[in-house]
Amino acid sequence: MTVESVGEVPGGLRAIDRQLLGLQPDPVEPGVLWFDLVPHLCRTDGRFYGGAALAVALAAGEAVTGRPALWSSTQLVATATQGERVRVETLVVASGRSVDQIQVRGSVGDRLLFTAVGSTATPRSDGLSGTGPVMPRVPEPEACADWRGPGNVDWGLVPDIGHHRVVEYRAAPLHAAAPDRPGHLALWTRLRGDMAAARPGLSPAVLGFMADLVPLAICRACGVDGAGTSLDNSLRVGQPGDSDWVLLELDGHSAVGGYGHGHVHCWSQDGRLLATGTQSARLATAAEMLARRARAR
Amino acid sequence: MTVESVGEVPGGLRAIDRQLLGLQPDPVEPGVLWFDLVPHLCRTDGRFYGGAALAVALAAGEAVTGRPALWSSTQLVATATQGERVRVETLVVASGRSVDQIQVRGSVGDRLLFTAVGSTATPRSDGLSGTGPVMPRVPEPEACADWRGPGNVDWGLVPDIGHHRVVEYRAAPLHAAAPDRPGHLALWTRLRGDMAAARPGLSPAVLGFMADLVPLAICRACGVDGAGTSLDNSLRVGQPGDSDWVLLELDGHSAVGGYGHGHVHCWSQDGRLLATGTQSARLATAAEMLARRARAR
Repeated sequence: MTVESVGEVPGGLRAIDRQLLGLQPDPVEPGVLWFDLVPHLCRTDGRFYGGAALAVALAAGEAVTGRPALWSSTQLVATATQGERVRVETLVVASGRSVDQIQVRGSVGDRLLFTAVGSTATPRSDGLSGTGPVMPRVPEPEACADWRGPGNVDWGLVPDIGHHRVVEYRAAPLHAAAPDRPGHLALWTRLRGDMAAARPGLSPAVLGFMADLVPLAICRACGVDGAGTSLDNSLRVGQPGDSDWVLLELDGHSAVGGYGHGHVHCWSQDGRLLATGTQSARLATAAEMLARRARAR
Repeated sequence: MTVESVGEVPGGLRAIDRQLLGLQPDPVEPGVLWFDLVPHLCRTDGRFYGGAALAVALAAGEAVTGRPALWSSTQLVATATQGERVRVETLVVASGRSVDQIQVRGSVGDRLLFTAVGSTATPRSDGLSGTGPVMPRVPEPEACADWRGPGNVDWGLVPDIGHHRVVEYRAAPLHAAAPDRPGHLALWTRLRGDMAAARPGLSPAVLGFMADLVPLAICRACGVDGAGTSLDNSLRVGQPGDSDWVLLELDGHSAVGGYGHGHVHCWSQDGRLLATGTQSARLATAAEMLARRARAR
């Protein structure tokens, strides 16, 4: 898998994002794209997947401004169901010599699904560059076991609906796991199936799509297995870098009364910090999630 | 200094936020507040301070929904100058039993200054609670020296303009500073002057106002002293807790071509994680900032 140059956004829309998200420019209206809610853009319950909303917001900003994505904070407002067609409108609210401030709205009819604020930016040749943290030590992905969801219980995943159709995860035990930092854990992830076969490259959108696991770490910080309903998905883009697998280093920060926050670093296999992400979520234990799923059946 | 209960937002607007930000409800239009750009809401150059925009977005969300702020990501679009009057409009785009999804826009006439996405949420009595990380060890604030800006050079601060009129900072050397984590540093901060004298309490808005220092840590991660122009200020609210001083534990994550990102943990003196924040910024070295300031004179 190769990474397209961060400075280059060919045709404004990367090949991998066109393939993963199915984004198509509106034939008439500038700044507008469309996509269909196909099964791999849904959660296992057939509803719109939050990581896909963030991915769409990142890719749409690049498509409309012609600059690489720098950051996006994507607020998840309402859901949508498999088969619906989503309109994505990008507004450039401020434009500088090397950076654009943008807002992206996704909607079905007059139903607002998500609103994103963010920037796209062209790196400056004389600008500062550097990385603060270092990648944690974990076993290689080949030595790690498949990870199938919070609590490692049988989630009864339906093979034909859900983002797990195109993304796989492996549990990556931290060499230096600290007993006083219970929300700190790591997973390897990569695209699979048709997406991996084409090897079309990583992108900010792909990282945003794969990194939507922060609620898992927040629940671990509370001492339980669980996940949550995301209120937002946010990503900040770092170094470009090639990688087959991406290490998600998760850190659950804080939860109060069922609402919590946390962080994720996305590392390439050779230790580049590709992106960082944050999320707030309404939390649920694995037991609550299984009970809810049983009631819905 | 006391902290008002996170579950209680009296009259929708906390006393400290009314005092710090001067927010006043519009007498007619629901969901609209106003404030004047007084000197302590500006940077030292007399322009609107990014930390104040985040603070206004957090306080406005609480005022309009009657729930405590959970998170806000505030995109800084255009600037304003001292003396201008700012209109703040809050839209509730989705409302649940214990959480509201909101958007806040600040403007002067038809000039958009900032757009924020975020949530306010009422803690659930049966909801998960916990904290992942632990507070780093630093000397007590009384044993720390005043901190006056990046590079510890003379920034020629004008005594009557700028947020430093109401906030003070002290450099807090980390006991366990890691040589492989150059962007990791800490500062003690608290309100001062009239704001401290009234001892009206901390709030999410006050924390957002004080925590706007992430670009400093990003520059350190690049091995230089500097700061930056924020593209956004984001805050996620954690545990309630009393504190006179607040420890800002900063972590510069990544910079590429002059644009970078980082993180801040806000700790109470007794080790509660009050909030976490993130920012993206256009970076500048201290030398570039001093040269720009000399040209502007």
